[in-house]
Amino acid sequence: MPTVPSASPADDTATGVDIVALLERGRTMSTPVLRAAVDRLAPPMNTVAAYHFGWIDAQGRPADGDGGKAVRPALALLSAEAAGAAPEVGIPGAVAVELVHNFSLLHDDLMDGDEQRRHRDTVWKVHGPAQAILVGDALFALAGEVLLELGTVEAGRATRRLTTATRKLIDGQAQDISYEHRERVTVEECLEMEGNKTGALLACAVSIGAVLGGADDRTADTLEAYGYHLGLAFQAVDDLLGIWGDPESTGKQTWSDLRQRKKSLPVVAALAAGGPASKRLGELLAADAKSNDFDSFSEEEFATRAALIEEAGGREWTSQEARRQHAVAIEALDRVDMPGQVRAQLVALADFVVVRKR
Amino acid sequence: MPTVPSASPADDTATGVDIVALLERGRTMSTPVLRAAVDRLAPPMNTVAAYHFGWIDAQGRPADGDGGKAVRPALALLSAEAAGAAPEVGIPGAVAVELVHNFSLLHDDLMDGDEQRRHRDTVWKVHGPAQAILVGDALFALAGEVLLELGTVEAGRATRRLTTATRKLIDGQAQDISYEHRERVTVEECLEMEGNKTGALLACAVSIGAVLGGADDRTADTLEAYGYHLGLAFQAVDDLLGIWGDPESTGKQTWSDLRQRKKSLPVVAALAAGGPASKRLGELLAADAKSNDFDSFSEEEFATRAALIEEAGGREWTSQEARRQHAVAIEALDRVDMPGQVRAQLVALADFVVVRKR
Repeated sequence: MPTVPSASPADDTATGVDIVALLERGRTMSTPVLRAAVDRLAPPMNTVAAYHFGWIDAQGRPADGDGGKAVRPALALLSAEAAGAAPEVGIPGAVAVELVHNFSLLHDDLMDGDEQRRHRDTVWKVHGPAQAILVGDALFALAGEVLLELGTVEAGRATRRLTTATRKLIDGQAQDISYEHRERVTVEECLEMEGNKTGALLACAVSIGAVLGGADDRTADTLEAYGYHLGLAFQAVDDLLGIWGDPESTGKQTWSDLRQRKKSLPVVAALAAGGPASKRLGELLAADAKSNDFDSFSEEEFATRAALIEEAGGREWTSQEARRQHAVAIEALDRVDMPGQVRAQLVALADFVVVRKR
Repeated sequence: MPTVPSASPADDTATGVDIVALLERGRTMSTPVLRAAVDRLAPPMNTVAAYHFGWIDAQGRPADGDGGKAVRPALALLSAEAAGAAPEVGIPGAVAVELVHNFSLLHDDLMDGDEQRRHRDTVWKVHGPAQAILVGDALFALAGEVLLELGTVEAGRATRRLTTATRKLIDGQAQDISYEHRERVTVEECLEMEGNKTGALLACAVSIGAVLGGADDRTADTLEAYGYHLGLAFQAVDDLLGIWGDPESTGKQTWSDLRQRKKSLPVVAALAAGGPASKRLGELLAADAKSNDFDSFSEEEFATRAALIEEAGGREWTSQEARRQHAVAIEALDRVDMPGQVRAQLVALADFVVVRKR
């Protein structure tokens, strides 16, 4: 099993790639097109969307908010380069994927009742549920518009892949919600859900630029295999951060996923592990599911559950799973003929995803 | 100004077209494909969608529910024929438009707090808000999938038109919601909102089959002009039914739009008319907007408002507006070269839309 480089995210020592610059390129090249697309929305949806993206604050004043890590735009531009096209060719794909990603965040935050994202109140909290639904819908529609107005056969193929990925993303959210109400979820079910919820759209980010650049379906599918497993690695790390992440870095509450009774990977792995800690955890969570006081649980009560998950091996298993998925992602890259520098950057991004702290 | 034929909907005497058969053809040809598309959804979304479409009841038993008038599928098949193609060519378009239409119903019912549709409890009421959001999202995604998997250039053009129409539909819903919180809305603002909310998707239904059948953009645009004005006529009649419709026929509450403080055409026209009834109505609605007892208003209080709207001329103006839009729609048909029988059917459908009782 390969080990993940312990390099700082800013400079991947294994590849010599400057990750910060790579993410910044994706953000810099795609944001103006993204903002122009969002500006097409009728008021007040344009304002609500601008708030969501962190471009303005809740009072409508210009802000330089945290728009997220922007991993997907960086991937979409590399995707075009993987097919031998200029990075610019991937821009509409980068924008469309970001629009779909943010459509899902707007709706998921409302469905999940999440009050904070990227250190700020969520849209439904500030502007109400109707705006969260409407603006989400509008971003999803804009995604198709941005691609299809290119008017090319490639744009149609790219939109089809994006639509399929979006359906999987919705399937994943449906599974995620249904699992919260179930006492037991298997590790396989959890991985399937996470593949849908996170893997599918990351996969699309990695194929969409290539498709716009004229890549054939086999190349696109192989790039998607890299993206899908990258997504699973990403989500495994997210699940670790959702329990043990530093709220200062993640912008979420402490024990965030436990507060939401998420059946995330560390939890399902711990429950499946057997042994005393696993058994005790199962008893506690079963009682929690029936508890009327859950919302007033103290920090200590969540800390107890987190400690049991760790003792049962759920934290270590998830950490290993991130590395397993990372390895499978990297292997897929060997099956596509692409410029060496592009390959190195995709490897570096995969490394970054696994070592990130937010 | 042309008068609308007073024929029964079942047999338009002006054209000799059997409207019931025409609507039934659209339903019969598109429903199996629609059901197959919905069956692709992961549980429980497939079940929730099947409930929404009236195929099963709230307990999951097969039902033969009211799936709506199915005007849009009928139009999409005629649209293909208008371009000289077989009606079957329009089926994916009919299905995609129905999916988008129902996506918007699912989300709008939740945003508007509507508890009844087609004589049954709405999805958010039966299955909860999260399912209404999720299944709506899934239907929207399916719409793109159904078209784009055709893999043709025409499918890309059709999807682009559908996406643009969907954006307008979302704009219209955003305007509709914002108008509910405003004291005054002009007739022009109301017409713009209704054009977005109803006109745009009906327009797309009338162009989508033709585009799939290879029609050029000019033909598609002219067909859309017919559909857009048909949509405005449709909505004017809907606004009349929303106040004076028979609950037995419409499946909605009495005074449905007044209960929701909708600034629909009869209301805004009455407020714009001037005169004593208009003034009194304005005073009442302004007081209603600040009232804490609005939800417990009696039938009589709504009847008083409806009578004032009628006295101020809002009912008659809206009725005339339906006829004006009907006439503009019919005129557009003269600018497209199409088989005479297809033209007669499109005329008959426009007549039906204006005389319908539900």
